[in-house]
Amino acid sequence: MMQKPTILITNDDGIEAGGLLALAHAMKDLGEVYVVAPRTEQSAVSYMVTIRDPLRFFNWDLGEGVTACALTGTPADCIKFGIGTWLGRKPDLVVSGINQGPNAAVNVLHSGTVGGALEGCVVGIPSVAFSLDSFDKHADYSTAGKMAQKVALQVLEKGLPDGIALNVNVPYLIEDQIKGFRIARQARSRWDEGFTERKDPIGRPYYWLAGYHVNLDNGADTDLAAIEEGYVSVTPLQLDRTDHAFARNMQDWSW
Amino acid sequence: MMQKPTILITNDDGIEAGGLLALAHAMKDLGEVYVVAPRTEQSAVSYMVTIRDPLRFFNWDLGEGVTACALTGTPADCIKFGIGTWLGRKPDLVVSGINQGPNAAVNVLHSGTVGGALEGCVVGIPSVAFSLDSFDKHADYSTAGKMAQKVALQVLEKGLPDGIALNVNVPYLIEDQIKGFRIARQARSRWDEGFTERKDPIGRPYYWLAGYHVNLDNGADTDLAAIEEGYVSVTPLQLDRTDHAFARNMQDWSW
Repeated sequence: MMQKPTILITNDDGIEAGGLLALAHAMKDLGEVYVVAPRTEQSAVSYMVTIRDPLRFFNWDLGEGVTACALTGTPADCIKFGIGTWLGRKPDLVVSGINQGPNAAVNVLHSGTVGGALEGCVVGIPSVAFSLDSFDKHADYSTAGKMAQKVALQVLEKGLPDGIALNVNVPYLIEDQIKGFRIARQARSRWDEGFTERKDPIGRPYYWLAGYHVNLDNGADTDLAAIEEGYVSVTPLQLDRTDHAFARNMQDWSW
Repeated sequence: MMQKPTILITNDDGIEAGGLLALAHAMKDLGEVYVVAPRTEQSAVSYMVTIRDPLRFFNWDLGEGVTACALTGTPADCIKFGIGTWLGRKPDLVVSGINQGPNAAVNVLHSGTVGGALEGCVVGIPSVAFSLDSFDKHADYSTAGKMAQKVALQVLEKGLPDGIALNVNVPYLIEDQIKGFRIARQARSRWDEGFTERKDPIGRPYYWLAGYHVNLDNGADTDLAAIEEGYVSVTPLQLDRTDHAFARNMQDWSW
C-alpha cells in the first residue's frame, strides 16, 4: 500500500448529500481525497453516461479541506470527468456513496451509486459502492462511514481482481449493534409498480412511477438477508454479465 | 407456444428510429405487436428508471397496423409503463431494438436497449435486446430483422430461464454473407475518452464526452469477435451480478 493513496469519491444523491460528506470524512484518514459529484440528485440512473448533452462544471466548497467539484451529469460521468479531466490521473481507489437507502437485490442494477463504482472498475481501479439502509434524509452516516473505512482499507491493501467491484450495504444501526460483515450474493427481487396518472394545471395527463420493492429470494446468503440480520453486506460484482452455464446450454438450440 | 403471442417492443433510439420499425415488422409475423418507445433518443441510459420526474404519453402512428405509443422516458420506463399501464397485462415476449450500433463488451452495461430487455427479464418475461453493427442512421435493418425473427421464434418456443435475458448483435452484412449464429461471451473493453471543453455564446465553458472503444479481450469466443467474423452474436445475460467465485475468496479477508 502506498504512503498516501489518492481516493476519488462520487455518489448519486448529489454534491449536497450528507452521505457524501460522511464518506469524504471517512476516507480522509486513508488518503488524499477528491470529490466529484453530481450537481443534482441522480438516483436510479444506473450506469448511464451522458453523450447527447454537454456538462457544466462547478468548483465546490465541501469544507474541512476536501477538494471538491460538482458536474451536471451522472455518477459514471463524474468518475470519467474526475479521472480524465479534473484529476488528470488515475486514483488508487474509487468510492461511491454513501447512498441514502440500500442498493441490494435488483436495485444494484438501477443504482447510480453502483454505476459510479462500475466506471472505476472498467478503467482498472479498485472501486466500492457504499449504501446505508435508511431513506431518512437526515440519517446519521457516522457508523456507515466507519464501516466504509474498514472496507476501503482492506481494498487498498489487497486490491481487487480485474473486472470486479464491491457493493457494500450498511444496516442503519449504532456501531455496537452491527454484527459484523457478511459476504453476500445479490438477491432476486423486483418492483411492484404502477404509474399514477395526474393532471397538470392545464388539464393534460402526466404519469409518475410509484411502487414497492418485492423480495423474491428466501436465501440466507443474500444481501437483503445480511442487512436484515444486522450485518454489513459485501457483494463482489462482475462486469461480465454473461451467464456462462446457460451459454453452454444454448449451444443445443437450433442455430 | 401460444397461437398468437403478445410481443412488447421498445428501443433506445426513440420512436422515430428505423431499427424500431424493422423490429416491429419482423415481430408481426410471430404475434400481436405493441410498441412503447422513448419519445426521444435515450442512448447510453443503461437500466435507468425515471423516478424524480413525471412522464408524458403520446399515441403514435407507426403505420401498417402496429399499435404504438411514445413515452418521455427511458427504455426501462417504457417496459414498466407498457406492461403495467398501457397493455395492463404481461406480454409473452419483450424485444428491444434494433439498436443503431452494436451493444457488445462494456457497451452492454451502458446500453438503454439492453436496459429495456432487462426490465422484461426482471418481471419474468423472456426478453431479448437486438443491435445492428452499424452507426449509419440510414442503415438497412432488413437482414437484422430476419435474424431477430429467428431468435425470437426460438425464445417463444423454448422460453428462457428465470433471470436470464438475451443480447443479440447482428453484423452489418447482406443475408448471404452472415455465417450463422454464435453463442458468445461479453468481451472485456473500455472507452478511451476525454471531455472536450468548449465555450458557450456567453463565454462560459461546457464539457462534452468523446472517445473511442478499446477492445481489451483477445478471446475468440467473445461478442466482439463473433460480429467481427460475420456471425450473429447471442449472449445470455444474468441479472445476478455477483461474482460467486470471488465471493468465496473474500471469506479469507479480515472481517
